[in-house]
Amino acid sequence: MSVIQVINPNTSDAMTATIAAAARAVAAPGTEIIAVSAAQGVPSIEGHFDEAIAAVGVLEQINRGKAQGVDGHVIACFGDPGLLAARELARGPVIGIAEAAMHMATLVATRFTVVTTLPRTLVIARHLLRQYGFEHHCAALHAIDLPVLALEDGSGIAQEKVRQRCIQALREDGCGAIVLGCGGMASLARDLTQEVGVPIIDGVSAAVKMVEALIGLGLSTSKQGDLAWPLRKTMTGAFEHLN
Amino acid sequence: MSVIQVINPNTSDAMTATIAAAARAVAAPGTEIIAVSAAQGVPSIEGHFDEAIAAVGVLEQINRGKAQGVDGHVIACFGDPGLLAARELARGPVIGIAEAAMHMATLVATRFTVVTTLPRTLVIARHLLRQYGFEHHCAALHAIDLPVLALEDGSGIAQEKVRQRCIQALREDGCGAIVLGCGGMASLARDLTQEVGVPIIDGVSAAVKMVEALIGLGLSTSKQGDLAWPLRKTMTGAFEHLN
Amino acid sequence: MSVIQVINPNTSDAMTATIAAAARAVAAPGTEIIAVSAAQGVPSIEGHFDEAIAAVGVLEQINRGKAQGVDGHVIACFGDPGLLAARELARGPVIGIAEAAMHMATLVATRFTVVTTLPRTLVIARHLLRQYGFEHHCAALHAIDLPVLALEDGSGIAQEKVRQRCIQALREDGCGAIVLGCGGMASLARDLTQEVGVPIIDGVSAAVKMVEALIGLGLSTSKQGDLAWPLRKTMTGAFEHLN
Amino acid sequence: MSVIQVINPNTSDAMTATIAAAARAVAAPGTEIIAVSAAQGVPSIEGHFDEAIAAVGVLEQINRGKAQGVDGHVIACFGDPGLLAARELARGPVIGIAEAAMHMATLVATRFTVVTTLPRTLVIARHLLRQYGFEHHCAALHAIDLPVLALEDGSGIAQEKVRQRCIQALREDGCGAIVLGCGGMASLARDLTQEVGVPIIDGVSAAVKMVEALIGLGLSTSKQGDLAWPLRKTMTGAFEHLN
Amino acid sequence: MSVIQVINPNTSDAMTATIAAAARAVAAPGTEIIAVSAAQGVPSIEGHFDEAIAAVGVLEQINRGKAQGVDGHVIACFGDPGLLAARELARGPVIGIAEAAMHMATLVATRFTVVTTLPRTLVIARHLLRQYGFEHHCAALHAIDLPVLALEDGSGIAQEKVRQRCIQALREDGCGAIVLGCGGMASLARDLTQEVGVPIIDGVSAAVKMVEALIGLGLSTSKQGDLAWPLRKTMTGAFEHLN
Amino acid sequence: MSVIQVINPNTSDAMTATIAAAARAVAAPGTEIIAVSAAQGVPSIEGHFDEAIAAVGVLEQINRGKAQGVDGHVIACFGDPGLLAARELARGPVIGIAEAAMHMATLVATRFTVVTTLPRTLVIARHLLRQYGFEHHCAALHAIDLPVLALEDGSGIAQEKVRQRCIQALREDGCGAIVLGCGGMASLARDLTQEVGVPIIDGVSAAVKMVEALIGLGLSTSKQGDLAWPLRKTMTGAFEHLN
Repeated sequence: MSVIQVINPNTSDAMTATIAAAARAVAAPGTEIIAVSAAQGVPSIEGHFDEAIAAVGVLEQINRGKAQGVDGHVIACFGDPGLLAARELARGPVIGIAEAAMHMATLVATRFTVVTTLPRTLVIARHLLRQYGFEHHCAALHAIDLPVLALEDGSGIAQEKVRQRCIQALREDGCGAIVLGCGGMASLARDLTQEVGVPIIDGVSAAVKMVEALIGLGLSTSKQGDLAWPLRKTMTGAFEHLN
Repeated sequence: MSVIQVINPNTSDAMTATIAAAARAVAAPGTEIIAVSAAQGVPSIEGHFDEAIAAVGVLEQINRGKAQGVDGHVIACFGDPGLLAARELARGPVIGIAEAAMHMATLVATRFTVVTTLPRTLVIARHLLRQYGFEHHCAALHAIDLPVLALEDGSGIAQEKVRQRCIQALREDGCGAIVLGCGGMASLARDLTQEVGVPIIDGVSAAVKMVEALIGLGLSTSKQGDLAWPLRKTMTGAFEHLN
Repeated sequence: MSVIQVINPNTSDAMTATIAAAARAVAAPGTEIIAVSAAQGVPSIEGHFDEAIAAVGVLEQINRGKAQGVDGHVIACFGDPGLLAARELARGPVIGIAEAAMHMATLVATRFTVVTTLPRTLVIARHLLRQYGFEHHCAALHAIDLPVLALEDGSGIAQEKVRQRCIQALREDGCGAIVLGCGGMASLARDLTQEVGVPIIDGVSAAVKMVEALIGLGLSTSKQGDLAWPLRKTMTGAFEHLN
Repeated sequence: MSVIQVINPNTSDAMTATIAAAARAVAAPGTEIIAVSAAQGVPSIEGHFDEAIAAVGVLEQINRGKAQGVDGHVIACFGDPGLLAARELARGPVIGIAEAAMHMATLVATRFTVVTTLPRTLVIARHLLRQYGFEHHCAALHAIDLPVLALEDGSGIAQEKVRQRCIQALREDGCGAIVLGCGGMASLARDLTQEVGVPIIDGVSAAVKMVEALIGLGLSTSKQGDLAWPLRKTMTGAFEHLN
Repeated sequence: MSVIQVINPNTSDAMTATIAAAARAVAAPGTEIIAVSAAQGVPSIEGHFDEAIAAVGVLEQINRGKAQGVDGHVIACFGDPGLLAARELARGPVIGIAEAAMHMATLVATRFTVVTTLPRTLVIARHLLRQYGFEHHCAALHAIDLPVLALEDGSGIAQEKVRQRCIQALREDGCGAIVLGCGGMASLARDLTQEVGVPIIDGVSAAVKMVEALIGLGLSTSKQGDLAWPLRKTMTGAFEHLN
Repeated sequence: MSVIQVINPNTSDAMTATIAAAARAVAAPGTEIIAVSAAQGVPSIEGHFDEAIAAVGVLEQINRGKAQGVDGHVIACFGDPGLLAARELARGPVIGIAEAAMHMATLVATRFTVVTTLPRTLVIARHLLRQYGFEHHCAALHAIDLPVLALEDGSGIAQEKVRQRCIQALREDGCGAIVLGCGGMASLARDLTQEVGVPIIDGVSAAVKMVEALIGLGLSTSKQGDLAWPLRKTMTGAFEHLN
């Protein structure tokens, strides 16, 4: 029996619900999912400024999860905000959803395409591709040009744009799989995979399976070297509680 | 309930037994492991020539596993021989143990070291690092300078050399994790991880968990594009049965 | 007449004083330097966790500087925490000291070496080298294995270790210049340059001159595309004031 | 007087004839060309599965050529199947036609385009570009979307599609030369070079000249290190004769 | 008070005047600009042959500037001809205008586009991007397909084509800034920046500010290692005077 | 019958004799070698300044060779000075000796080491490795720390240092071949290859065979695109005769 904490780095509980459902849909019988929003911060993450704020919210939740004794953590925003900091702080493994989706995509196709929300977030995906080593495995990056929260407005417009962009990408990019570039798209992957006939990969579910895999292997972040526990320091102001 | 076929690409049944044990040690309750040696080929794989032979043995076993209805496949030799060909041929996901170990290593450390058998196989690991995207995540590659089958001679000498090389690597390489570069080292990972205090990663167990993860996500190799089913052709000679 | 805000992302005022002195020593006649510490956060920055905290402190100061009407900003910690977020937020140009030092080093030598504090921070420098494009211009990275605040303890021990590491690097690395990898080393550059006879580059002074250069050219961060102003959102909790 | 064995890795004798003619057309006065098909395997090579089969056929022929005392070998399929394995096995130099064409292209243009048969084979060319070091020298890759054997159907349709794709590539890609991406296109290079006015490079003829060059220099594969003779092992089954 | 020598590597005095004006427009109060044309060579630089000739003209002027006691040098042709040779020869810092513009562009945008004159010069910019480390920061390269001297013909046609190409690039390339790829475009930057609303960067003015920055930091080319003074040798013929 | 012009870019006739002998030793029966020194310039090439001078000397000789109707050209200095400029100017193919040696080395080993003269020239080799695409094929670069002309002083000291460096490199670098990094080492390759038992590659002989190969294929520099003929311009001063 293991417990995985799935952290939505933004404060939108509707999105947290979408993410939680996607996580639970794939969790193994012995896995419990605890899904949380950031306790404070931004309602959606669409740029570096938003990410910097969200990273602190992630770290707060990592601390809470650690106190609760969870076995691993998922950072459920496609920019993986605070990932390496969270790895320093956590006892169990920590996986970002961009990371998880990109890794999985390289296991089922020689090249993948990313479909995300606003064009301004493409640079974040591009930086992650380089950091994770997958820039040569990425055929193309596309944005549907709608904000993250359009995925939660109930109209289905954003979902339809994602769907059309995936179909177009398959025709034009020479890719074999598609990575959905937002935690809010988590509910779309399974149906789209059926419809378009190639793996459409959601990072939330991918990350849950990766954390399960690491737990099953008895592996967690190396505490020797550059991801060792944060050095103990006197923190001040709004960060005092993180100490 | 799912069935994973673990293929030892060489013909040494002793090594297959080592590999099978490592696979079963981490398999989820609902996973059955079928471990097989190559039906024909080379007793160990220590170069490109050996790999070319072994790749055919892998494909034969993929075909058999497919006929048996297995859900996924592991190629249990650190050079991942025949990986992309096997992905074309198989219905379920296929993971190589070098691939699995390297992916896992990047999730628990910023840089990892590889420890393998003969120096002549280092080039194979180096090529895989580039192909998978992890050349910047690899701190160093080392060979213990003993052949693969020394791991099966019962003396424990090779195992001790691996152990010492890991300890030395941690002092010198600036790595946070170590990847064991041979299927025959699968039994060493857990104890070494305990002893040296950083993740020592065995590809066999890592690959089993990755195949489980892909099965759990309902993902398999994309059949659109460059990993589509092999085109049907009249094969001749020793390969006729692969048709 | 222009005003440059030099932000020490940590809360150690002694280090801010060192940084301020280095900044003022090179500022052009028409440049006023305003040096500030983070208002809240960590007393030194030695890992990703510290950086995530510090990034928020940087953004707070960017906002204050913007309110004061400063013309440009320097982020005076060698990891450049919050750099891209700060570029979204600021009106004037923003330069990190790692970035500045690395750029300058490539203009005076074909390859440079980095000398920093704790080994665990090397990964941060390595990531920045890749992000800025200078991984092929870096001959080696070294850590003196002392914490950042050892540079402020008045003993001179850390300074002496930096000095010796520079001299050794010049003998062994095949580099033509050395980048000092910590804001707290800012006061060492000029004397060391004299002593060892190659450019020893401090990022604080380099960043001040780069901001002056950008101001002189009438250039600031592009507000079209992925560094546009942060989208306006309802921020909550400790971040409310950043809105 | 030297003898070069040109190995068509597939079993199609018509293609072997095309390849032999191209080889003989450029062979030096003192060079004898022996052209052979794979003795067993696949009639054409259009994916990784086909390549894995073909690699064994190549090794069989390398062994025969070695027994006959040939001075060097060409692997005449654009994926260069079995290249490094063949280098371990052979006494004389071994050159693949993709390798040869790509090397030559970089000597006569700053960037080249590749034109090949089926889209699914593009990934193979892309992997070779990285392995050989020429990814930055490649302007684009195109497929005419016809199978390899269409080049042997006598209709000339495939040849005309190659011709048109070359002309279009020159207009659009900013390339200075074109590499023909299939052994079956060998007969087209000289006329196309005349017609379109830039080097259109066939790998078969390029490889023959490269093997001649290596023989002339007294150079062959280094037998120290990772391309040393295959270690002697007991091979079983269909591979017994390769021992 | 410092003196910067701005060297137009071609012999066209009209272009030197354009360059001088751009340099003086941004020079600090304490900076004197000396602008010179190459004393001999080619009237414009549009290829590698032209560059090889121009490099000697640059070195001659570096020598003259050194004799005059100037404090730093700018090489005002977008291919930066002779840059590393000039660094060996000069006492003060030497900056090329392609280098300066590219560096500055990465400080104000995550990706930039280059707009230059003839398509044949694109390869030079591409090589510099790799050498300086900015290939991943460049979104696209475009040529207006007019020769360099069209910028000096008084018709304004070339200037208008540059303007339109910048506007189109911003719509299509996903870039945040544009680098003008020719010294003859120096006068366009400021107005274009106003008009199109993103940084349009001229290398001449950028290089002047970078040389000022280096002088202000007391930094010049490292004379230890591979940019040390040229070894003294007996030069003959037209190069005797360079000794 | 074809004529290859081998250009020693420096003015030392003794070195030209060494180079000519190496070229003639491998030339095919139908190949005539014309070996020339630069008519003016520097007696040896050991840095970027020397290279800039030498490039002009190369271009002068290319022009003379073209007037004589030679079929191809070799630039016989390990920095390949003026290579792309020469390709614009020449009618026949032009090959540099660094280029030739590096290409050949990748055909006989997975990784090679470079042994050159002065440490300050290592940067030139490093830049060429990147430009030609072989940075991942190079295991190490070493300098014997003697000037180029030490190879012509008759003492044999430099030759002995080269020999010892090769032997040491084979023990330590994990390379399978060695590239001799100076035209003046051309006479050493064959004997060293015998003695140390791996390919020791001299660029002069390699380049001659590569030019022969290109001539045999009917290939020369593409005149479409960025290596087209130099645009006709009014050249002045010492360069007038190059017009």
